[in-house]
Amino acid sequence: MPLSRIHTNFKNVMNRLILSVILPAMVALYSFGAKPSDNLSMPDNSIVRTDSINSSILQEWRHFTVYLPAGYHSDTTSCYPVLFLLHGFSDTNQSWFCNAPLAAIADQLTEAGEIRPMIIVSPNAGGKPGHDWNGYFNMPGWNYEDFFFNEFMPWFESVYRVCGNKESRAIAGLSMGGGGAASYAQKHPELFGSAYIMSGWVHNEKNTDFIDNSDKVALVRQAVAENSCISYIADADESTLENLRSVKWYIDVGDDDFLLDADIEFFRQMRSKNIACQLRVRDGSHNWLYWTSALYTALPFISRNFR
Amino acid sequence: MPLSRIHTNFKNVMNRLILSVILPAMVALYSFGAKPSDNLSMPDNSIVRTDSINSSILQEWRHFTVYLPAGYHSDTTSCYPVLFLLHGFSDTNQSWFCNAPLAAIADQLTEAGEIRPMIIVSPNAGGKPGHDWNGYFNMPGWNYEDFFFNEFMPWFESVYRVCGNKESRAIAGLSMGGGGAASYAQKHPELFGSAYIMSGWVHNEKNTDFIDNSDKVALVRQAVAENSCISYIADADESTLENLRSVKWYIDVGDDDFLLDADIEFFRQMRSKNIACQLRVRDGSHNWLYWTSALYTALPFISRNFR
Amino acid sequence: MPLSRIHTNFKNVMNRLILSVILPAMVALYSFGAKPSDNLSMPDNSIVRTDSINSSILQEWRHFTVYLPAGYHSDTTSCYPVLFLLHGFSDTNQSWFCNAPLAAIADQLTEAGEIRPMIIVSPNAGGKPGHDWNGYFNMPGWNYEDFFFNEFMPWFESVYRVCGNKESRAIAGLSMGGGGAASYAQKHPELFGSAYIMSGWVHNEKNTDFIDNSDKVALVRQAVAENSCISYIADADESTLENLRSVKWYIDVGDDDFLLDADIEFFRQMRSKNIACQLRVRDGSHNWLYWTSALYTALPFISRNFR
Amino acid sequence: MPLSRIHTNFKNVMNRLILSVILPAMVALYSFGAKPSDNLSMPDNSIVRTDSINSSILQEWRHFTVYLPAGYHSDTTSCYPVLFLLHGFSDTNQSWFCNAPLAAIADQLTEAGEIRPMIIVSPNAGGKPGHDWNGYFNMPGWNYEDFFFNEFMPWFESVYRVCGNKESRAIAGLSMGGGGAASYAQKHPELFGSAYIMSGWVHNEKNTDFIDNSDKVALVRQAVAENSCISYIADADESTLENLRSVKWYIDVGDDDFLLDADIEFFRQMRSKNIACQLRVRDGSHNWLYWTSALYTALPFISRNFR
Repeated sequence: MPLSRIHTNFKNVMNRLILSVILPAMVALYSFGAKPSDNLSMPDNSIVRTDSINSSILQEWRHFTVYLPAGYHSDTTSCYPVLFLLHGFSDTNQSWFCNAPLAAIADQLTEAGEIRPMIIVSPNAGGKPGHDWNGYFNMPGWNYEDFFFNEFMPWFESVYRVCGNKESRAIAGLSMGGGGAASYAQKHPELFGSAYIMSGWVHNEKNTDFIDNSDKVALVRQAVAENSCISYIADADESTLENLRSVKWYIDVGDDDFLLDADIEFFRQMRSKNIACQLRVRDGSHNWLYWTSALYTALPFISRNFR
Repeated sequence: MPLSRIHTNFKNVMNRLILSVILPAMVALYSFGAKPSDNLSMPDNSIVRTDSINSSILQEWRHFTVYLPAGYHSDTTSCYPVLFLLHGFSDTNQSWFCNAPLAAIADQLTEAGEIRPMIIVSPNAGGKPGHDWNGYFNMPGWNYEDFFFNEFMPWFESVYRVCGNKESRAIAGLSMGGGGAASYAQKHPELFGSAYIMSGWVHNEKNTDFIDNSDKVALVRQAVAENSCISYIADADESTLENLRSVKWYIDVGDDDFLLDADIEFFRQMRSKNIACQLRVRDGSHNWLYWTSALYTALPFISRNFR
Repeated sequence: MPLSRIHTNFKNVMNRLILSVILPAMVALYSFGAKPSDNLSMPDNSIVRTDSINSSILQEWRHFTVYLPAGYHSDTTSCYPVLFLLHGFSDTNQSWFCNAPLAAIADQLTEAGEIRPMIIVSPNAGGKPGHDWNGYFNMPGWNYEDFFFNEFMPWFESVYRVCGNKESRAIAGLSMGGGGAASYAQKHPELFGSAYIMSGWVHNEKNTDFIDNSDKVALVRQAVAENSCISYIADADESTLENLRSVKWYIDVGDDDFLLDADIEFFRQMRSKNIACQLRVRDGSHNWLYWTSALYTALPFISRNFR
Repeated sequence: MPLSRIHTNFKNVMNRLILSVILPAMVALYSFGAKPSDNLSMPDNSIVRTDSINSSILQEWRHFTVYLPAGYHSDTTSCYPVLFLLHGFSDTNQSWFCNAPLAAIADQLTEAGEIRPMIIVSPNAGGKPGHDWNGYFNMPGWNYEDFFFNEFMPWFESVYRVCGNKESRAIAGLSMGGGGAASYAQKHPELFGSAYIMSGWVHNEKNTDFIDNSDKVALVRQAVAENSCISYIADADESTLENLRSVKWYIDVGDDDFLLDADIEFFRQMRSKNIACQLRVRDGSHNWLYWTSALYTALPFISRNFR
């Protein structure tokens, strides 16, 4: 009976700290004077790492947090499918990893064979409302969508061993990130094989009042209205609709969620244009209990749509 | 679209802090000069509170953390059923509340009508291995089982509005606490209507070596061996077995758990004596992912066995 | 290894045939010349029986099929909660028992303690479209709703050992029977503690064309329009709404069901009037796979709302 | 509101009858005088067909029932992965299709994208105990294992468009067929990518009494003993074990199943030799409720292990 076994998350957290902060630092120091390949072997377990990119579009460093599956460092020849997992309003790149046991769930599903090993990355598009920018769309002073597609994604896929095609790329997100995921997949169906939208902020009524460009909260609300996923389909021509049908869609929203009606309308709009889409309404509201349990269906859905 | 809605756990944590620490302090200050009933109304949502009891048996203050369901403070006449929820080795009274979203799950299941409002309390029987005592049984220098039944439970049920009978009392736990829950229900089937054992440390081989009474880890291992739940049934007379049949039993353990074999043997032993018991083996091992998901079946099982 | 164990449904079917047809017949013959209580004991397992009632309202014999839980015949003093389970268009009283393994599911959930022993009865309100009457409402020539409330329910509850109050009575159904269940619970919230609506035909557009009273299909469509569950709430005064809030509501409908939109509107209408209601949208369409799996949530929901 | 929609299994059954019996007969008659490709198109939905093979090993015609996925007949160039799905003692090739809604479940999971389109075939190895042969192993007078591997499988895969390699072939079964599936995959790990064992009869104590070769029930019991899946692993050399590790294993058995202990021992034996295996113990016993619900995990498991 291995009494010494200490069954807490803290051990994992500590492991990850060591692996993502301390070990890389040691490696960096060490490598000034030696060939790393000689006597260092990277661990075979999964790693969560927070890193950053210097964006010329946004004119600042932007953080992202990435999950690298077990085996990523030991087998340095394989490429991996990738999930871009978007956080919600006022959340950051850390939220999916701190408010839900994302890495532990991904590990377990991988070990059980329910998902393929995949890279999961969550870039920062949020923070403190009012003070920080929030949002996945282009806004006056904050061209995040340009950043995502022209800087972040290409750079990330050149640095990490991502397979780099539609068949091995997916997008998902919750709330503001659910809307972002839906909109990104709508505008770039050639890039994403599947999209899983949780409690998605997919639509907002347009505000006709004047918006002060320093009101960051009003700007994101306006951006969601301008990028309405419902209007996008309503206005699409047949060629665009045909492209939308090449993406596997899944909407997952709680029966007590304040975004339920918007998500239902989004589903109806897709159905009316013969865009196949899964819909699930489960018990729950707009919180981390819901999004944590959603990972158990989201990751397998995404994985089985990787080719 | 309530953009102001901030969907993080932090808000709940903050609410709970306010409710469990700040508000009671304010109430205490305030009540020196006024009649509280006049103009103060307690909140109607659930509360998590950490409190302590001065034990004469253990000769020290012992902490416990308790979940009080929504409505507990607004309706001061009702009594509630109670679940004693035991933590594992090296964990403490906080673990069920910090490592799993226990309060949020209990809230959601209550709101959905899947469970009855209930009090859930987790007393501290652990801490840092070697330094702190760990264990639910009587050991030289640490008579925890006496404390639990002679001090803690009677005092708790006199202070909190617990119905106070077998039909409205349950016990559950994980690992060391799973073994504790099983053993407590075996020795006191007149007290508990149901017992839910997760990844239960229900048995240990006896150690014939001399044990130094200052070796707290060896002592708890020995105590588990001496209180083996498997031997208890094997040695029971028919009258004892008949009493064991008055408890509803449920064992829930992962297929990769190092305690799987012990829990299977416990189940077999019960089955061989016609003690009805549910058994579930789900995907997983000895970790908080497993115990978190177990709450979704444990709480409904416990609730429907309340009368 | 009990090789003789034959694991097919046929054995159960045969058992039920013996119990519901052959045994009663033998008992009837036997009892001409003997005191049955002397030497006959009824079985302790569950029984499915098809029986009939001579309706003066409908001017004909009407069939119903009833599930009596294990223990019903051995303990002749207890009363039981009852579920009225309504079939769909073109189905009959047999459909819930032949197209889904209703009795086996009820047996298993009872044995596992997930539901309380309950009586489940499905009266015939259907048959071959065009030839037979279909529908739960009053129509010219077919006052089924009067029959249900004034004849069938009172008679059934006087003949079978039903507790006979709101707290121990529930209603559920699929499709046309889902609409029937919703409407019956709306009009008689004093009779039903809970209502579970599967793929409910809860609304139909009104037809302004002349309807020939011999067109039985047009009549049922018109009756559903006139008894729209959505309009009922929209038109209700506050006192009626308050009564509706005394029922526990649950809507369960597939994402590919042609009645999805109607059920969503019904849910929205209830939500807008603060009538608490669970909503689930699962994978599936308008078929027996869906309704079979729905039983695993419907029966526990109904059971935990019995008092 | 498509009232004309008749939601019963009977329509599907009728469709399948038409498709599997009547339509092929018409096609056969028709094709005497015409080129079928000119004006006949095969349906795009799934088909269940019962067919037979003239076995020279068994010296008789043997039936099998096969599920062909939607699209099989319209796209005549693709090959499909195949699942060999074995029935239980006293069951036949029809049992998986008549006692469980296998085709409907496979259709739904395929449409929802949870499984890949696959061929599922169940050959007859059973019937009336005593009168008919039962069993998947070679017995005096009934060399079924030879038939399966030397006649049935090669012939089936030459007639149906099966991909025909380990990566696209799986085996599964219930009870006697669960034991058969386990044993077949043990002896031929080069043929099967995965094996899903439900309530598996994987072991039997050896009988030392004389067995009359006309006692077909005693013979199958003896054959299971001689082909014990537990002994097979215990006796295996390292090279054999390494081959067993190339198969994905899954054991699924009810907590009230009389074969629970045997299946647990089988799992333990595999674990002790580091053969990865999933184990699930769910609520239930040895019946079709269990095997029906098992299909919802078995088919996805099998599908995701197809390459």
